[in-house]
Amino acid sequence: MPYEGFEDYFQKKVILSVATTGGLHGKEANPNLPTQPEEVAEDIAACEEAGASMVHLHARDENHEDTKDVARFQALRDAIEAHCDDIIVNFTTGGGGIYPREERIAPVLETEPRPEVATIDVGPMNFGQTRTAINPREMSEEYAERMRDAGVKPEIEVFNQGHIPEFEHLIEEDLLDAPYWATVILGMQTGTPPHPRNLVNFVDNLPPETEWQALAVGRYQLPLTTMAMLMGGHVRVGMEDNVYYRKGELAESNAQLVRRTARIADELDRPIASTAEAREMLGL
Amino acid sequence: MPYEGFEDYFQKKVILSVATTGGLHGKEANPNLPTQPEEVAEDIAACEEAGASMVHLHARDENHEDTKDVARFQALRDAIEAHCDDIIVNFTTGGGGIYPREERIAPVLETEPRPEVATIDVGPMNFGQTRTAINPREMSEEYAERMRDAGVKPEIEVFNQGHIPEFEHLIEEDLLDAPYWATVILGMQTGTPPHPRNLVNFVDNLPPETEWQALAVGRYQLPLTTMAMLMGGHVRVGMEDNVYYRKGELAESNAQLVRRTARIADELDRPIASTAEAREMLGL
Amino acid sequence: MPYEGFEDYFQKKVILSVATTGGLHGKEANPNLPTQPEEVAEDIAACEEAGASMVHLHARDENHEDTKDVARFQALRDAIEAHCDDIIVNFTTGGGGIYPREERIAPVLETEPRPEVATIDVGPMNFGQTRTAINPREMSEEYAERMRDAGVKPEIEVFNQGHIPEFEHLIEEDLLDAPYWATVILGMQTGTPPHPRNLVNFVDNLPPETEWQALAVGRYQLPLTTMAMLMGGHVRVGMEDNVYYRKGELAESNAQLVRRTARIADELDRPIASTAEAREMLGL
Amino acid sequence: MPYEGFEDYFQKKVILSVATTGGLHGKEANPNLPTQPEEVAEDIAACEEAGASMVHLHARDENHEDTKDVARFQALRDAIEAHCDDIIVNFTTGGGGIYPREERIAPVLETEPRPEVATIDVGPMNFGQTRTAINPREMSEEYAERMRDAGVKPEIEVFNQGHIPEFEHLIEEDLLDAPYWATVILGMQTGTPPHPRNLVNFVDNLPPETEWQALAVGRYQLPLTTMAMLMGGHVRVGMEDNVYYRKGELAESNAQLVRRTARIADELDRPIASTAEAREMLGL
Ligand SMILES: [Zn+2]
Ligand SMILES: [Zn+2]
Ligand SMILES: [Zn+2]
Ligand SMILES: [Zn+2]
Repeated sequence: MPYEGFEDYFQKKVILSVATTGGLHGKEANPNLPTQPEEVAEDIAACEEAGASMVHLHARDENHEDTKDVARFQALRDAIEAHCDDIIVNFTTGGGGIYPREERIAPVLETEPRPEVATIDVGPMNFGQTRTAINPREMSEEYAERMRDAGVKPEIEVFNQGHIPEFEHLIEEDLLDAPYWATVILGMQTGTPPHPRNLVNFVDNLPPETEWQALAVGRYQLPLTTMAMLMGGHVRVGMEDNVYYRKGELAESNAQLVRRTARIADELDRPIASTAEAREMLGL
Repeated sequence: MPYEGFEDYFQKKVILSVATTGGLHGKEANPNLPTQPEEVAEDIAACEEAGASMVHLHARDENHEDTKDVARFQALRDAIEAHCDDIIVNFTTGGGGIYPREERIAPVLETEPRPEVATIDVGPMNFGQTRTAINPREMSEEYAERMRDAGVKPEIEVFNQGHIPEFEHLIEEDLLDAPYWATVILGMQTGTPPHPRNLVNFVDNLPPETEWQALAVGRYQLPLTTMAMLMGGHVRVGMEDNVYYRKGELAESNAQLVRRTARIADELDRPIASTAEAREMLGL
Repeated sequence: MPYEGFEDYFQKKVILSVATTGGLHGKEANPNLPTQPEEVAEDIAACEEAGASMVHLHARDENHEDTKDVARFQALRDAIEAHCDDIIVNFTTGGGGIYPREERIAPVLETEPRPEVATIDVGPMNFGQTRTAINPREMSEEYAERMRDAGVKPEIEVFNQGHIPEFEHLIEEDLLDAPYWATVILGMQTGTPPHPRNLVNFVDNLPPETEWQALAVGRYQLPLTTMAMLMGGHVRVGMEDNVYYRKGELAESNAQLVRRTARIADELDRPIASTAEAREMLGL
Repeated sequence: MPYEGFEDYFQKKVILSVATTGGLHGKEANPNLPTQPEEVAEDIAACEEAGASMVHLHARDENHEDTKDVARFQALRDAIEAHCDDIIVNFTTGGGGIYPREERIAPVLETEPRPEVATIDVGPMNFGQTRTAINPREMSEEYAERMRDAGVKPEIEVFNQGHIPEFEHLIEEDLLDAPYWATVILGMQTGTPPHPRNLVNFVDNLPPETEWQALAVGRYQLPLTTMAMLMGGHVRVGMEDNVYYRKGELAESNAQLVRRTARIADELDRPIASTAEAREMLGL
């Protein structure tokens, strides 16, 4: 159903998410990218202070390498408990083509407390020359079921318009609860090309009753997340998606990116949702 | 030719125009709307200080009523000379359905110095219950010819996609010089409905070699002019288009609106063009 | 509300309208263009035989000139009664900028029996070098009221996206009854440029509960009316919009154009609505 | 670069391709789906007679199962030589997630004569509950290089907008020769949803100098391939994409589908390209 939510811009607060770390690049791309629990949590605390109501997390090991180790996710969780106030924790289940299916969801199910939100990548993607992230339908169904059982809200990541039918399939199979929560992603390797025209078309393909945020990678992050805000959508920024603050200038922290987004939201006269308001909008 | 200018966002400075006064509403809508030469020029000076490189002007008489009186345009011109630095002056030729054709263009041709830019409304529009602004093709051709002879750059105002063929007609008749300068307008009575989807489509219909700015009326000004900036276009704000700063809060001045736009441009990391840079982009 | 009717292609019959004559060009453009009641009615009878369920009519005088003379409309009506079976009669109220407002609607109200449908042009348009068709809001409101009183279904003609707000205004003022019946027009002088991209955007701007047909002028008639059919819309063809059957080959009759449309509908596996089915879809 | 090719509708002949067999479904879906060389070639001959200038082929074994066996492709090739006149032969290299990379391209390189065209699937796709077709960038590059060396024209299959960047990557790496030949696919499981709005956006994302055809699966084949023709694109039909002729009625043959497409092209007044004309347009 094509998107009718432009009026939401005038009426609905914007949920500001931050993705601090990601799994694709690390301190070689930006030494300020936080990888260890303490530095991640300190950055998140500053993000929360700046208005972020949700944090999307990947874990890294002591050597800054991506990991699905539950203990590392638990360490992140614990550090957040210690440093942050009330931010909504969102764990990735990404890593298709690298990690076994069971390992990808384990941190969602086995940490305490569980995250309130976790991602489901509902379609395959190419990364680099040889890797394909495999996300078969059967896996999406399984993840959705297990998240429902665990009381975790799925965040459906759609990287291109071709991922929409898998999203709709989950709805048709009654595996998701409305309002659905989706991330519209632009600019990945086999992702929708990052362009205003494409953000309009992409969003026009979302199922009804979907709350959506947009993210875009690299230099497209700033214009296209701003566009999402003024279209009535929500927004995710952070170093997972873009390690630069501006051309030629690395971000100092995730909070620096969040603060800019908050200032833009403020200039756009679209208030930022509190954690409580974000929970209510997403049915958490 | 569909719009390929998104890359301009990353490479081209943004021209910030202000339309201080307009002809449709006055101090009854907002007592801060400037109508008299001195107050207009003082507001413009503050706009220029804040980054505006062009001012679009309508004249008002001593009773604040819209007028095509050349003397009143000259008074505006003189006040600008006295108060402002180098801002590009742009005169309206609007007023179809109210003023005779000759009167509408007289201020453009008879003030000294002439404005550098003047508008041409290339199609008809409804206003209110009974008025139709009449802008026949013959008039657009005549205005373009006389502006070229007078060394004035036409600004083509397109209020809906149906005005595009008239714009193209002027190009085909060799009555305009590239780069063309167009204003894409959303939200008027018989104008394109103000929606992100429609701004994309509208711009996709512009002729090649067109520099464009967008304006949108009322509460749509803020989101859609921001969208224009992030699409690689230019932007016009001001009390002609919107008398509010935000919902329920009247603008204090045009400069207040310009300052917000400049702050957003700054946050979007898109530098504002100086008057010299604007002149170069527009071939003035 | 953006268009969700693609599924209609699979489920809804297509209403095929024909506009035999128009008011802009005549036998100088194509000697087969019918102007006199007998030849018009004979052509319509062949159109009806070929599947047309509605005929849109302008009247011409004995010299083939456009006229608003009620007697000439009555003569058309009588000839149709004599020659045709059950086709829905639709009278133009066009002619803004040429005829007084009262004359334009007189044939709708004063012929017997009245037409079941009549057009309302809800916005202004340029024609040629000097003419502007004036269609102020007050007139649209008046026409809608008088048609409702007379039991005539309005057909809202939208020539560009800027005419949509006037259409919506009539709905908001409760002057139209759902389902609304609209004609989306592409390719006129101040009309939306005829392009597949624009037909999509145009239709995405229609109000909910609108049954729509598309027409496009000249060589754009064939591709864009076919596109309307496959989008789930309805279709109007005829010599008012296009006097050619194909490039360099004048149409022999309106029925020739209708027969092609019917063949395409058949190939597209979209059945043509009977007059009864068209009446039901339009709430006649 | 957004699509400017609508004028091609008026100026360029349409290449009509047929995909007779595919690899996903077989005679259980439609007993008329040809699988054995003789029946395939006889169907192709009828397709060629009806206007098809290219045939896209998958091979089946004696038990009608999908196979990459070079001998079976050679048998198809030989049967085509025997039965057909001059149709352009196009071999699939699909089958990611099922066949090793080397097996998928072997028939292209090892049959005699080689096919003139062969597909490259440039991104991953989900099929059913568990299968992911893996098409990493490295494979696309390798296939493009080997096809160039072998004198085979690549047909880039893009299943959603996310596959476009991989297509562009091949161009940037100078692995493809203009004009590029692309198939825009709608309606697969992780493919762009089949909708007129999406066909417009999809095509707006194609690289410059691309000749494109569209295909759509199942009941969307007829409307969206017709739309491609009227947009100025080319068209592929056949039982690989759709086993029905119309709702509830299985296709009797591929030729039946081709004949309908040819009739529609004829009604749309867009001539069908001969094999020689198709070769010229594609630079074969
Ligand atoms: Zn992530
Ligand atoms: Zn103005
Ligand atoms: Zn008419
Ligand atoms: Zn295939």
